[in-house]
Amino acid sequence: MEVENRYIAVRHHVECSPSEDDFEVKSAAVHWTAESGEVLVRNMYVSIDPGQLNRMKRHSASHHSVGPIVPGERIVAHRVGEVLASACPEYEVGDVVAGVLAWEEYTLFRPSPVMCKVDASSGVPLSYHVGVLGMSGTAAYGGFFEVCRPQSGEKVFVSAASGSVGSLVGQFAKLAGCYVVGCAGTQAKVDLLKGKLGFDDAFNYKEELDLKSALNKYFPDGIDIYFENVGGEMLEAALANMNTYGRVAVCGAIAEYTDPAGRRAAPSLLEVVYKRIALRGFLSYDFMAQFHEYNAIIRNWIREGRIQVIEDVSNGLESVPSAFAALFRGENVGKKLVKLS
Amino acid sequence: MEVENRYIAVRHHVECSPSEDDFEVKSAAVHWTAESGEVLVRNMYVSIDPGQLNRMKRHSASHHSVGPIVPGERIVAHRVGEVLASACPEYEVGDVVAGVLAWEEYTLFRPSPVMCKVDASSGVPLSYHVGVLGMSGTAAYGGFFEVCRPQSGEKVFVSAASGSVGSLVGQFAKLAGCYVVGCAGTQAKVDLLKGKLGFDDAFNYKEELDLKSALNKYFPDGIDIYFENVGGEMLEAALANMNTYGRVAVCGAIAEYTDPAGRRAAPSLLEVVYKRIALRGFLSYDFMAQFHEYNAIIRNWIREGRIQVIEDVSNGLESVPSAFAALFRGENVGKKLVKLS
Repeated sequence: MEVENRYIAVRHHVECSPSEDDFEVKSAAVHWTAESGEVLVRNMYVSIDPGQLNRMKRHSASHHSVGPIVPGERIVAHRVGEVLASACPEYEVGDVVAGVLAWEEYTLFRPSPVMCKVDASSGVPLSYHVGVLGMSGTAAYGGFFEVCRPQSGEKVFVSAASGSVGSLVGQFAKLAGCYVVGCAGTQAKVDLLKGKLGFDDAFNYKEELDLKSALNKYFPDGIDIYFENVGGEMLEAALANMNTYGRVAVCGAIAEYTDPAGRRAAPSLLEVVYKRIALRGFLSYDFMAQFHEYNAIIRNWIREGRIQVIEDVSNGLESVPSAFAALFRGENVGKKLVKLS
Repeated sequence: MEVENRYIAVRHHVECSPSEDDFEVKSAAVHWTAESGEVLVRNMYVSIDPGQLNRMKRHSASHHSVGPIVPGERIVAHRVGEVLASACPEYEVGDVVAGVLAWEEYTLFRPSPVMCKVDASSGVPLSYHVGVLGMSGTAAYGGFFEVCRPQSGEKVFVSAASGSVGSLVGQFAKLAGCYVVGCAGTQAKVDLLKGKLGFDDAFNYKEELDLKSALNKYFPDGIDIYFENVGGEMLEAALANMNTYGRVAVCGAIAEYTDPAGRRAAPSLLEVVYKRIALRGFLSYDFMAQFHEYNAIIRNWIREGRIQVIEDVSNGLESVPSAFAALFRGENVGKKLVKLS
């Protein structure tokens, strides 16, 4: 079997805010044979994640751990697809699989632990497997429960709280009995946090002249846990408001991705010392061994209606570049993903 | 019994590098009676610690955890002294005690867990009880073994490595089977680190144009543990050279104490995320429950000649202000203390 596969590539290294012009749609034939030992998948949903920008840079701390994205080549991403042809006994035509592949329409793969079969009849939308039941959910669960080690009653601050990970962390924190405040960049997002997602409070950071004072207002008793997604001034303001033995889970720093020469967070080390603050970076991949365990818990919470899943879906492979660029303008609400034809 | 007690106070809040003029010698009568339930001690050695500067500021993260130093009032510090008169059965005249009291010649205290009797006949110099067998040793032991959790063979970087805590951490790291490089601010200190203290290597940071490149040269295989005493650029350079799952114990940040409006460390959060780096602040007081346990281990190492103790002693109460100010010019080698008359 042969299909024409269209995929997205970067034309060159991307060092600052990405634009659609940084990308191109390329095309190549994909051959599958019954003797190949491979599975051919038609992709249905692909994940759009801000961290991918770091991998598009010429130099980045990401290259040693998750590898660079090479101009002209396929861009690895989490996706869900349907098996079109299989030369492996473990997979049959019509199976739905989820795992780490690429921003492309068709993918050939060999059986691997990172490609999971998905029960398409379970009633869970298939798109969830690129987000809440994919790496976003794993990052949120592992980052919050393992890195932050929350106690009931603790005060939790989440930045980029309406994003794919932040929107889950805030809800997990409520389930853990914590008090949760999130920040986001539009009033509509703030309304979502306080309404549908059940945050105790939320604010629009763009409307605050002084983030330190704002956090002091929202956390009169201080912050015990900060789930960090943005970096920059927000980290400084959070540290200034943290309690003794506060914990910071550093999941991302989107404000620092797009401007490598720009202003970085300069957290007060005196706060770190005297409050005995612990900051820890992590990647969703760190929790791969717990992936199925976390997924089962999250899936139950979804079934029981205890967490809400927010998705922001664009359509068609061509929309991947604009969907990706929009992430850095804060235009997505919830998990950003692209539905392929 | 009445004695005239001379003590050191700050004249006003101290926000930048301290100078002798910021201090004054004050005097007040101390009355002891047999009915008071108190112990009168003539102080022999007092500890001089950079962290005390933070407590002299008008506003500081230190005030909530260790309390401010109030202009005109006595300045709390670790010290060793001899009992002159006692109204407590636990203490006799001639006993030597060590604990947290003040920069002064005489002190009255009531029995407390922070005042320990010291075996003056053990052969250990009494001055050690304000340093290696006091809070410096506790900070070094707890900070290195508990916060950093070293494994044999790991690569350890220590800044301010010839200071009271750094000089011990480097030696503890060698005892733990680690590779250790320290930095300091003079060639004499570098020679001390590489010679008497047994560091694997050492360098003078003032002679390096680019700290990041310097650390890359000294750690071609990367840094696993950074014991942070200085802050600023050094932390940025260390993070850039750290390995995956690197740990940073934030013991102090002397470069940031003297210039609150100045340049603070702006560590790359991308390094923190992708290398899963953990940074944790701590205070020696966090290990008070382990104080005697750590002390017994350190005392054995001293007896067995496995660690060297470096002290930098000034004489007389009047020298406290200049001794303190000199800390921030990097003039001390090892533990800074003042011997009273």
